[in-house]
Amino acid sequence: MTDLAPSSRVTFKADELQAWVADVLRRCGLSDDDALSAATVLITADRRGVDSHGVARLASYVGLVRSGTVNAAPRVRIVRERSSTATIDGDNGLGLVVGPQANALALTKAEECGSGFVTVRNSNHFGLAGYYVLQAIERELIGWAMTNGTPVVAPLWGAEARLGTNPIAIGFPSGEEPPIVLDMATSAVAYGKLEMAQRLGVSIPKGWAIDAAGETATDPGAMMKGGALLPLGSSREMGGHKGYGLAVAVDLLSAVLSGANWGPWVPPFSVGFPPPARQVGAGIGHFFGAFQVEAFIDLDEWGRQVDDYIRTMRATEPQPGTNGPVLPGHPERLTELHRAVHGIPLLLMVVAGLEHIAKQLRCPLPTSL
Amino acid sequence: MTDLAPSSRVTFKADELQAWVADVLRRCGLSDDDALSAATVLITADRRGVDSHGVARLASYVGLVRSGTVNAAPRVRIVRERSSTATIDGDNGLGLVVGPQANALALTKAEECGSGFVTVRNSNHFGLAGYYVLQAIERELIGWAMTNGTPVVAPLWGAEARLGTNPIAIGFPSGEEPPIVLDMATSAVAYGKLEMAQRLGVSIPKGWAIDAAGETATDPGAMMKGGALLPLGSSREMGGHKGYGLAVAVDLLSAVLSGANWGPWVPPFSVGFPPPARQVGAGIGHFFGAFQVEAFIDLDEWGRQVDDYIRTMRATEPQPGTNGPVLPGHPERLTELHRAVHGIPLLLMVVAGLEHIAKQLRCPLPTSL
Repeated sequence: MTDLAPSSRVTFKADELQAWVADVLRRCGLSDDDALSAATVLITADRRGVDSHGVARLASYVGLVRSGTVNAAPRVRIVRERSSTATIDGDNGLGLVVGPQANALALTKAEECGSGFVTVRNSNHFGLAGYYVLQAIERELIGWAMTNGTPVVAPLWGAEARLGTNPIAIGFPSGEEPPIVLDMATSAVAYGKLEMAQRLGVSIPKGWAIDAAGETATDPGAMMKGGALLPLGSSREMGGHKGYGLAVAVDLLSAVLSGANWGPWVPPFSVGFPPPARQVGAGIGHFFGAFQVEAFIDLDEWGRQVDDYIRTMRATEPQPGTNGPVLPGHPERLTELHRAVHGIPLLLMVVAGLEHIAKQLRCPLPTSL
Repeated sequence: MTDLAPSSRVTFKADELQAWVADVLRRCGLSDDDALSAATVLITADRRGVDSHGVARLASYVGLVRSGTVNAAPRVRIVRERSSTATIDGDNGLGLVVGPQANALALTKAEECGSGFVTVRNSNHFGLAGYYVLQAIERELIGWAMTNGTPVVAPLWGAEARLGTNPIAIGFPSGEEPPIVLDMATSAVAYGKLEMAQRLGVSIPKGWAIDAAGETATDPGAMMKGGALLPLGSSREMGGHKGYGLAVAVDLLSAVLSGANWGPWVPPFSVGFPPPARQVGAGIGHFFGAFQVEAFIDLDEWGRQVDDYIRTMRATEPQPGTNGPVLPGHPERLTELHRAVHGIPLLLMVVAGLEHIAKQLRCPLPTSL
């Protein structure tokens, strides 16, 4: 990632920023519990360095609630249930509020039955997928989280956006080593990378995106004007059918199985965008799951083997010009440790957005470090 | 895929070929049930056009059993169990025998609890991953199947093979449209594509493989001499960390969770290869799972929505030079329908291998069409 100069950033203590976000959300009509829950999801992204999914998006969430597009006080309810599964209706609440409740149910079911899976309809954008699997890891569970989203990705051989970036997160507890946390969009790259390229005025590699005619785009602006991102693998020759297939699987599990909108009919994330031509379900959909490690193998044996696995992968002969393989989630873990001490550095542009919210809601930002 | 002239193929009726394979396996010491089960998995690959995973591999399976490397009469047993999960020890049986039993348990648990997941250790190569999810689909379940395998794939930024092609299959029942069946290696391409390129004497695209020094290989032979395949996504810029992360997840669920060998320590598929330097578990590992659709949503509503989903994706504006998106598993379904009528065309080279087995075991091949 291209970083900017430190002088272009303002640093806040994570806990203070989190308390402020919770305060903002309370002033938008969320209950104390819901506001704290949503703020925790959001700041976890900033703590782990996934800046695109943190407070940088607060304005969108606030906009959705204040405009009444999203329900500030949802009554999340179970509409169908088996011993190890459930379908949840999020009552059009913030995904940041609905997601943690649905995920907690999946974790409890996994503790009871060995596996637990919950599909969710009538929800909205749920933030960082990795947050939910970190919750599982805290309880010595293997965690899964998926969500569909606004269409920005073309199916392989398609010339238009019909799928979200439909992320998959899978988290594994470990022994003494840090846990393994995979958190990946099923597109070749995140939308944020194109925004970054456009801001910097640089071209993008072939295989990231297509233009409105379905042709390879190397100008990020060409994708944004009616084009689409490409699925992971990009072309048939390099495995683009696999990224596309994974995106379809996420969509079916999150939205078709729950009764949410899917594919091109997923509603937009922010206010001010036109609604899709069709409505085939309620809101957007998520899918949460967990396995209890001890249901399968002794926990201490698991921890020893996962640590061995991590050290074995690290000991791989490095590819020339690299420092060798890293484990999924370990770079984010390092950022988390660093930011716990040194605070969360926010871009001036992001801080300006937060200042605007602070003024609107008469809720002053905490003092920067 | 590069196809060869029809004259270079011999065609057999699928049912006759399957009965013959079962007969061969019985003569190797498998019980009637086990032989039929293994033959069904193998011929399903040929029926669906996944020729690399069908009878072309029979010699390897026969070699494993006849050399005593694999147990011809395994007592597959549950070593740990919860209401929705189990750990199975395959008693060093053929994966083609152990897999169907473990998968059937996962399906039954899904019918009882909503979800069912089974991890398997002490097994061997299980054939076509897609076979197992087709079994789920027949029972109106969503199916999952994964396995680890012999190390041939480098982790991102690694210069040596440390992971199998670790496939993921996910299958979804549908209404009137054919089911959606994703069956993908987590490497950029299958090993078979390199073998094909080498036979044809053509070079391979950048991003498929590296040579022994960890540098990009465009000569398939350079990969085979101590190099490795690359994970789906190929490079960091194009998402190689995602394919690598998925391969790690498959390995952890299939092998670490069950107590099998993982990563570089997975034993080879065929006889005659040296064993890995370490043994960290028993045999290779699989992971099977299922969700009962009706546990989440009415089955007829699911069927209607999946059909709508399929038709919506097909209606995507095609990318120039293509016929537009196809759904995962639909091309294989067409091949299956075609081969049900016209038989299974086998390469002369494959038939020669089968003739050799036929002579060894005094079990003559069926008459070709």
